Amino acid sequence: MRKVAVIGLGHVGATVAYTIFTHGYADTLVLLDKNQAKVEAEYNDLRDTLARNDYYVKVLMQDWSQLKDTDIIITAFGDIAATVKTGDRFGEFNINARNAQEVGKKIQATGFSGILINISNPCDAISTILQESTGLSKAQVFGTGTFLDTARMQRIVGEKLNEDPKNVEGFVLGEHGASQFTAWSTVRINGKSADQLFSKQEETILSDQPNKNSMKVAAGKGYTSYAIATCAVRLMLAVFSNARLFAPTSVYLDEVETYIGYPAIIGKNGIEKVIKLELSPEEKEKLQHSATIIKQHIAQIR
Amino acid sequence: MRKVAVIGLGHVGATVAYTIFTHGYADTLVLLDKNQAKVEAEYNDLRDTLARNDYYVKVLMQDWSQLKDTDIIITAFGDIAATVKTGDRFGEFNINARNAQEVGKKIQATGFSGILINISNPCDAISTILQESTGLSKAQVFGTGTFLDTARMQRIVGEKLNEDPKNVEGFVLGEHGASQFTAWSTVRINGKSADQLFSKQEETILSDQPNKNSMKVAAGKGYTSYAIATCAVRLMLAVFSNARLFAPTSVYLDEVETYIGYPAIIGKNGIEKVIKLELSPEEKEKLQHSATIIKQHIAQIR
Amino acid sequence: MRKVAVIGLGHVGATVAYTIFTHGYADTLVLLDKNQAKVEAEYNDLRDTLARNDYYVKVLMQDWSQLKDTDIIITAFGDIAATVKTGDRFGEFNINARNAQEVGKKIQATGFSGILINISNPCDAISTILQESTGLSKAQVFGTGTFLDTARMQRIVGEKLNEDPKNVEGFVLGEHGASQFTAWSTVRINGKSADQLFSKQEETILSDQPNKNSMKVAAGKGYTSYAIATCAVRLMLAVFSNARLFAPTSVYLDEVETYIGYPAIIGKNGIEKVIKLELSPEEKEKLQHSATIIKQHIAQIR
Amino acid sequence: MRKVAVIGLGHVGATVAYTIFTHGYADTLVLLDKNQAKVEAEYNDLRDTLARNDYYVKVLMQDWSQLKDTDIIITAFGDIAATVKTGDRFGEFNINARNAQEVGKKIQATGFSGILINISNPCDAISTILQESTGLSKAQVFGTGTFLDTARMQRIVGEKLNEDPKNVEGFVLGEHGASQFTAWSTVRINGKSADQLFSKQEETILSDQPNKNSMKVAAGKGYTSYAIATCAVRLMLAVFSNARLFAPTSVYLDEVETYIGYPAIIGKNGIEKVIKLELSPEEKEKLQHSATIIKQHIAQIR
Repeated sequence: MRKVAVIGLGHVGATVAYTIFTHGYADTLVLLDKNQAKVEAEYNDLRDTLARNDYYVKVLMQDWSQLKDTDIIITAFGDIAATVKTGDRFGEFNINARNAQEVGKKIQATGFSGILINISNPCDAISTILQESTGLSKAQVFGTGTFLDTARMQRIVGEKLNEDPKNVEGFVLGEHGASQFTAWSTVRINGKSADQLFSKQEETILSDQPNKNSMKVAAGKGYTSYAIATCAVRLMLAVFSNARLFAPTSVYLDEVETYIGYPAIIGKNGIEKVIKLELSPEEKEKLQHSATIIKQHIAQIR
Repeated sequence: MRKVAVIGLGHVGATVAYTIFTHGYADTLVLLDKNQAKVEAEYNDLRDTLARNDYYVKVLMQDWSQLKDTDIIITAFGDIAATVKTGDRFGEFNINARNAQEVGKKIQATGFSGILINISNPCDAISTILQESTGLSKAQVFGTGTFLDTARMQRIVGEKLNEDPKNVEGFVLGEHGASQFTAWSTVRINGKSADQLFSKQEETILSDQPNKNSMKVAAGKGYTSYAIATCAVRLMLAVFSNARLFAPTSVYLDEVETYIGYPAIIGKNGIEKVIKLELSPEEKEKLQHSATIIKQHIAQIR
Repeated sequence: MRKVAVIGLGHVGATVAYTIFTHGYADTLVLLDKNQAKVEAEYNDLRDTLARNDYYVKVLMQDWSQLKDTDIIITAFGDIAATVKTGDRFGEFNINARNAQEVGKKIQATGFSGILINISNPCDAISTILQESTGLSKAQVFGTGTFLDTARMQRIVGEKLNEDPKNVEGFVLGEHGASQFTAWSTVRINGKSADQLFSKQEETILSDQPNKNSMKVAAGKGYTSYAIATCAVRLMLAVFSNARLFAPTSVYLDEVETYIGYPAIIGKNGIEKVIKLELSPEEKEKLQHSATIIKQHIAQIR
Repeated sequence: MRKVAVIGLGHVGATVAYTIFTHGYADTLVLLDKNQAKVEAEYNDLRDTLARNDYYVKVLMQDWSQLKDTDIIITAFGDIAATVKTGDRFGEFNINARNAQEVGKKIQATGFSGILINISNPCDAISTILQESTGLSKAQVFGTGTFLDTARMQRIVGEKLNEDPKNVEGFVLGEHGASQFTAWSTVRINGKSADQLFSKQEETILSDQPNKNSMKVAAGKGYTSYAIATCAVRLMLAVFSNARLFAPTSVYLDEVETYIGYPAIIGKNGIEKVIKLELSPEEKEKLQHSATIIKQHIAQIR
C-alpha cells in the first residue's frame, strides 16, 4: 500500500495533500506541521471531502512515528512571505535551514528509509541540508528544483508558438532561483531545435521568464501552489511505479559538488542515475555560476 | 465541448478551478474576479501546470463575453474573513448580496443560458438573489447548500462507527448555516436506521457537528476549500452528464417559499425535480424554522 | 507500493488488468495464465500502451514467485463458453473447481499472505475452494458475488425511474447465479422504500432481470467484462485504502454455512465484518434456498 | 457537453468505448454497429457498470440521427480475422473499403460536422475513403496511423535502455502497416540522438519491431486493443480541449498525395497543421515508398 507524508501544510503542502487525495494517489496520507490549528484544519477539510471523493484515503496527522513505514516524504515547510518580500527564495533560507536541520533529525529518529522529495526553498540548498540531517543517501533525497521551472519554460515557449506545452522538450537548469537558465541546446519543439525558431535575443528574454513569472504569481496570490504541487506529485508517482522517468530535478551533481537542477532518471530508489548533458561552453559556465551561488549560501550557514 | 466559468477566485473558487483542471473535467475554464492581480496569478499558476498535468485545459480570464456559450457557471465570490470573524455565514451577507446583484446583471447581459451553481455564502440567500438578478429560471440556479453539510455529517457518523463515510445515507437539511439540521429519519448506515444506532442525545450532539466543524476548519486555515470545491465539482459533473443524481442542494422549495437545503434530482437542466421527503413533525418544524431565518435575512435587504 | 496479480487472462481478467493499468491503480501488475500466447499478447498490448497512458505501471508475466509479496490477487480463470452454452455458471464448475484447487495450491506455495478477490464462476463455490486450497483465512478470500448483480439491479431500477443508478440502494443476495434474488426490504430509491414504488408483481419481474440480463450480455458478446471488472477493481481499491466499504460480496456466512452473496465491510484485512441484515421471512427462505444450491454443488465434487 | 460516437463495436471499438466510459471522458456515448446482438451486449455491459463507475455517462445505441450534434466520431469497424490470417492489414481492405463507403455516406446524411478519427485498417487507405465518402474536409478526418506504432517504438526503445517509454521521442512514419519505418533522425532519448546510442544494424532491427510485435499480439489474443484504444482516446482529448498536440497520425500529406503516418498539430479543427520534418534522403525515400504502397491499394478499388 502507498503511504505518503507531507511535512509543512502551508499552501504548497496542503495543495500537494489535496492533489494526492483527490486522485487517490496514496492509501495513507500523514500530515505534519508545527502549526497545530492549521494542520488540524487541513486534516478535517480533507476528511470532510471523503463522502464526495472518488477514492477513500486514510488521513492521519501529527504522528511522526508513522514515518517509520512511510514510502515517500514530501517536505513543503517554508516562509513564502519572506520570499515574496525579497523577491528571492534565499529570503527564507535562514529559517528554512533551521527547519531542515530539525525536521531531518526528527525524520532520522523515526527510522524512515524511503524517498524524500523536497519542495522547501531555496530548494537546492534545503535539499542539501535535508540529505545531511536525515542521514539518507544522495539517491534517496532530491528536490523538485527546475522540474517546475522547466514546466514554466514549456508553457511560455508553447504559448509563444500557440501550441501544447507538452510539445516543448528541453530543460531549465541550475538553481531553482534567479541564476537558473534555459539550456537552449536541449530545447526542441516539434522536432526543431530552439535555434531554428528563436533569435539569441528572444532566447535571452524567454530564459528569464520562468523565474520572473513565478515571482509574479507569488506576488499576485501570496504564494504559488498548483504548478509546484503537480510537479511534486508527478515525481512521487515516478518513484512509486519505478517509472525511470527522465526529469530535471534538484540532484547532487558531482561535477559541481552541490544539489542543483539537472536531469536524472527517477525510479523506486529516487535518483537512479544522473544523465550527463552535452551543454555548450556558455551553458556550462552558467551552470557553474549557478552552483557557486548555491554553495556560497550553504557555506554561510555552516 | 465543456466550458465552465468560475466567478470569484478566492480560496474556494481557485480550488474549484484547480479541481476541474487537474482532472480535465472541462475543456475551457474561464476565470473572473474583481481582483485583477489575484485572478492573473491563478491563471498563470494553472497554465504553468499544463506541462505536468494529465490533461490540456484552455484557461481564459477576465473576459465576461465568454459566458455567452459557457455551459456552467460556478459562483464563489465572498468575504470569508467576515464569516470567520462572526462565526456565521450571514456575516458576509451584505457584501455578497451586493456582489450577487452586480454579478447577476453582468451574467444576464452576456446572454448566458446555462446552469449556475452557487457556492457564495450565505448560500441559500445568495442563490435566491442570483436567480433573480440573472433572470434565469429556478431550475437553472441552485446552490451547493447542504450537499456539503451532508458530506460532513456522513464523515462524522462514518468515523463514529469506524466506517467509510459513503456507507452513510441521509441528509442534512435547511440553511447552509447555523439552523441546519440532520434529518435523522433519512439517515441509514449499512441498512440500519439511525434510531437503531444512536440515542436521541447522541443524535442531537452529532447534528450540531457538521456546522461546528466547518467553523473550526475556517478558523484553523482561514477558510474551507477542499470539501466545498469537491461538492461543487460533483454537482457540475451531474449536470454535464445529465446523471439525474439525487442530492441535497440549495433549491427553491415551494413548501417554504425559499431556496433551502433539500434533496433534488440534478441533471442537464439543473434541478430536474425536487424530491419530497416524508419528514417527522419535528423535522418539518426545523425546516420551517430554518426557512424563516433565510427569508428574514433576505427581507432585510429588499 | 501496490502490487496486484491477475490469475486468468481471459476477457474478464484482461479487462481487470487494463482497468487497473489505465487508471494507474497499481504500481506492479503480475499476469498469470496457462495460455502462454494469450498472456504474452496481453502483456505486450499493455506495455505498448505505456507511452500513451497517464501512468507508468510495471507489468510482469508468468512469474508465480512474484506472488510472495503481492498485496492482492484477483482470480479470473474460467470457461465462459460453458456458461454461455448452458445458460448457468455451474456449466463451468467442474473445470473451474479443478483450476481452483490447482491455482490455490500454487498460491499457497509462494507464501502469499495478502487478500484474494475471486471472480471465477460459479463465484460462491469457487471462492469456497480457493479459500480451502490456498489455506488463507475466510477474511482474506472473498468473491465479487452479488456486488455485480446489485449493480445490475441498481441500473435496472434506476432506468425504470429515469434516474442515476447510484440513487438506488439495496442488495441482490444469494448465489451469483440463477437462485439470486433482490432483497426488496433493503431497496430504497431517493429515500423511498421499494414497496412505495413498485407492486409485488413488478418486484418479481425486476428481481429476475439482473441475472437474465447478464446471460443476454454473455450471449451477445460471448462473455461479460466491463461491469464485472469494474466491480472487482472497486473492491480492490477498498482493500488497498482500508476504506471499510459496505458492499455485498461473496462472503462466508455462518448462518448458512457457505460463501454466498451478502453484505460485509471491506477493508485492508479483506472481510472486516459481515453485516447482519433484517430480512423478511420470505427473503430468509430465499437465502437458505440459494445456499442449499451452492452447497449441493460443492458437495458433488468433494 | 462532450458527445462521442463509436462506429464498429468489435474488440477495438468496445475498448475505446470502455476507456471513454471508465474515465468519464464523454457525457454521451453513441454506439453503432451492424451486429445488433453485439452492440446491444456492449451497451448493456456498460450500463451495468454505472453504479460502480466514478462517472455517469449516457450510453445510446443504434441511432444514427444522434450523429447530427456529435462532436467526435471514432470509426473502428473491421475484420481483424482477415488481418491476423494474412499478417497484413490490407487483408481486410476490400471489406473495409466497402464499409467505409457505406458508413461515410450514412455519416454525411446525418449532417455531422465534427471530427472523425479513424482506426479501421488499413488505416491510411480507409481514412482516405472516409474523408471522401463523408464529404468532410481533410482537416476533419484523420487516422490513428503511426501514433500507435510510435508508441510501440517508444516502448521497445525504452525497454532496451531500461527506461520509461515516455523518455523516448521521435516518430514512426509511413503506412500503419508493413512499410512503416522508424525515422531515426527524429529519435532522441534523454537528449541523446539515436545515432549516439544505437548502431545502424541495431536501428534496422528495432525499426521492424513495432509492426512485428503488433502482429504477434494480434496472433496471441486474436486482435490488439489496449494500445490502439488508448491512442485513439488521447487524440480525441486533444480535439476536445484544442490542445494543439504534436503527434504522428494518419494525415493527408500533400508531398506524397495520400493519407500517411506523419506528424501534425491536433486541435479542435482536427488537423490544425502538418509539421514538415527534415528527414534524411533515405527516410524520404522510405516515406515515398510507403506512400506508393498505400496509393496502389487505393487505386485498385477505384
